[in-house]
Amino acid sequence: MKNINIPKTTINRLSLYLKCFIELSETKINFISSKELAALVGLNSAQVRKDLSYFGKFGRRGLGYNVEILRYKISEILGTHKLWKVAIIGIGNLGRALLTYAGFKERGFKIIAGFDNSPDKIGWEIDGINIYSIDELERIIKKEKIEIIILTTPKTAVQEIIDRLKKTKIKGVLNFAGKYLVADENFKIRNVDISLELEQLTYFVINKI
Amino acid sequence: MKNINIPKTTINRLSLYLKCFIELSETKINFISSKELAALVGLNSAQVRKDLSYFGKFGRRGLGYNVEILRYKISEILGTHKLWKVAIIGIGNLGRALLTYAGFKERGFKIIAGFDNSPDKIGWEIDGINIYSIDELERIIKKEKIEIIILTTPKTAVQEIIDRLKKTKIKGVLNFAGKYLVADENFKIRNVDISLELEQLTYFVINKI
Repeated sequence: MKNINIPKTTINRLSLYLKCFIELSETKINFISSKELAALVGLNSAQVRKDLSYFGKFGRRGLGYNVEILRYKISEILGTHKLWKVAIIGIGNLGRALLTYAGFKERGFKIIAGFDNSPDKIGWEIDGINIYSIDELERIIKKEKIEIIILTTPKTAVQEIIDRLKKTKIKGVLNFAGKYLVADENFKIRNVDISLELEQLTYFVINKI
Repeated sequence: MKNINIPKTTINRLSLYLKCFIELSETKINFISSKELAALVGLNSAQVRKDLSYFGKFGRRGLGYNVEILRYKISEILGTHKLWKVAIIGIGNLGRALLTYAGFKERGFKIIAGFDNSPDKIGWEIDGINIYSIDELERIIKKEKIEIIILTTPKTAVQEIIDRLKKTKIKGVLNFAGKYLVADENFKIRNVDISLELEQLTYFVINKI
């Protein structure tokens, strides 16, 4: 499938739809109309139909979208129909919150290991996940075939860790570390900045749009 | 200033530029070219110039952008040139991580209070911030003039809290609670979903774009 021309904003909304489909399939709802789906995600139904039409004919007039099929199809597009092995580097409050977040697995992400440099944390097991010394990073990534890193270290530790990760086979980094990272040829990077989320909120508050 | 026609994606990038300007002003750099700024955020310089041109003539040929002026201007656009009073509802690992995150203040957000329903947490003070019983929500919001809520409760608690917040004067909710919330007429809502961030990452990993 050629996804290359799909707008990024559509890809973003696919995650929203997927989340709805996962919740719907838990409630045993088998079909949903574009109108109902639009209401769940706060969009208009024309937008929903347009977004989902990029990927072929999913909907059936009068019956709506098949929840299970669409759940699978969108997972496939986003790459989460398989389970990704994830490690978290930096087991502070945020790292710990992510380590124990039960919702990742149904979305295709399995946390395999945590890393920290504090002797207080190394050797611990949290919800069945081992916390390793950062010295063991390359060895464990290789042994456990970890593909995705969630980075929750302090800003100051980021560059050294990124340099080390370049020599591993990881494929992507979700970066919470407060230092903005630009794309790397070795792996994909996505920056998450909670202050940015707050700013985007206040922009809409002050502009009342 | 009329911001109504600015694309959402530009508003998003403004936060990235702002983050750079804050870091630059700490390092005493006074001017930056569109090319240098573009490199810092991983964009091309034409995009940077276009984004910043929405808000008037900030750059000066040969000299570049004035860091302090642009920092102020973008803050003004995003509404963060003033300090917003924020409360966090749900003091689990994530709530605690956000409560103690030092980076909010320089971006215009001051955490004033935390709320929880656990007797183990109520009455505590974390980094000078009081943790109140959720029963006191309306009283403290009014007393402290809180405008923004960060919601980090379990999914099951969300609806009741949103209903209570509707009767207060808060202006925005940043929602981490795992239950997608659509827009509300009483306040703005922005949903943050870390699984979504991971999915957006894996999409780009599997499509190699």
